[in-house]
Amino acid sequence: MPRIDIRPATSRDIPLILSFIRELAVYEKLEREVVATEENLRAALFGERPVVEAVIASLDAEPVGYALFFPNFSTFLARPGLYLEDLYVRPVARGAGVGRELLEYLARVAVERGWERFEWAVLDWNEPAIGFYRKLGAEPLTGWTIFRVTGKALQKLGRNL
Amino acid sequence: MPRIDIRPATSRDIPLILSFIRELAVYEKLEREVVATEENLRAALFGERPVVEAVIASLDAEPVGYALFFPNFSTFLARPGLYLEDLYVRPVARGAGVGRELLEYLARVAVERGWERFEWAVLDWNEPAIGFYRKLGAEPLTGWTIFRVTGKALQKLGRNL
Repeated sequence: MPRIDIRPATSRDIPLILSFIRELAVYEKLEREVVATEENLRAALFGERPVVEAVIASLDAEPVGYALFFPNFSTFLARPGLYLEDLYVRPVARGAGVGRELLEYLARVAVERGWERFEWAVLDWNEPAIGFYRKLGAEPLTGWTIFRVTGKALQKLGRNL
Repeated sequence: MPRIDIRPATSRDIPLILSFIRELAVYEKLEREVVATEENLRAALFGERPVVEAVIASLDAEPVGYALFFPNFSTFLARPGLYLEDLYVRPVARGAGVGRELLEYLARVAVERGWERFEWAVLDWNEPAIGFYRKLGAEPLTGWTIFRVTGKALQKLGRNL
């Protein structure tokens, strides 16, 4: 049996995480949107006021995937939840159970911290992922749409005050 | 012209914010989901490690609404964004521009902090809100669905490790 390990990322993992982010973007057909740099990523993960956490998955001691997450918040519960921003396993390592181990690890983090939800977004065309998530007990949140203001529209809205 | 003021919430506002949360839940037809307490809310907003921020809107010195937000994160940008969890204006105060002032205030917070996105979720049946958000420059993020694990399914997933 291949051995799977999950561990919190350290600052030495920054170049590796940035590679994973780029590989994930290629898979999602969104690579043109990646403008992340090692510097920005370091600030977010290990700066004075970290806003995200990351874990690295290895298969037989070889890093093959990662997850990146931050706390979100439900006002109805008045409790934090765990929002999984990215989950990625290199194609060569798929099918060995690494993705499942990553999700189980994060569910344990949520339970241990008293965070009452575990959520993430899935591309609607990614049917293999959707089937996998449903098998683990996840359910789609229907009836809501995310709206976003960014770029010049955000600058404009902020200046109007 | 009625005078609109927006200010950061303080711990004295906790009972007021909890009232607003309950009123919002009634409007969203989700009141059965509200189990928030003053204690949980205080910990989230003003505890040792705050996870959310809130602002209070007043109309002619009378509190009439609030917004509650936290940083989210884009790995593609490697930058935080502002996620607006709740926005609420009491029905009696609607039409005076309070909602717009709240959104402009939050857009300025995002711009000042270098947060590159401003996002929130809207119930698909809430067409007045959707029209209002579009006019302010917001666009729907289509093609993604949120999946959630909570309750017993979360405990089960966490225990499997």
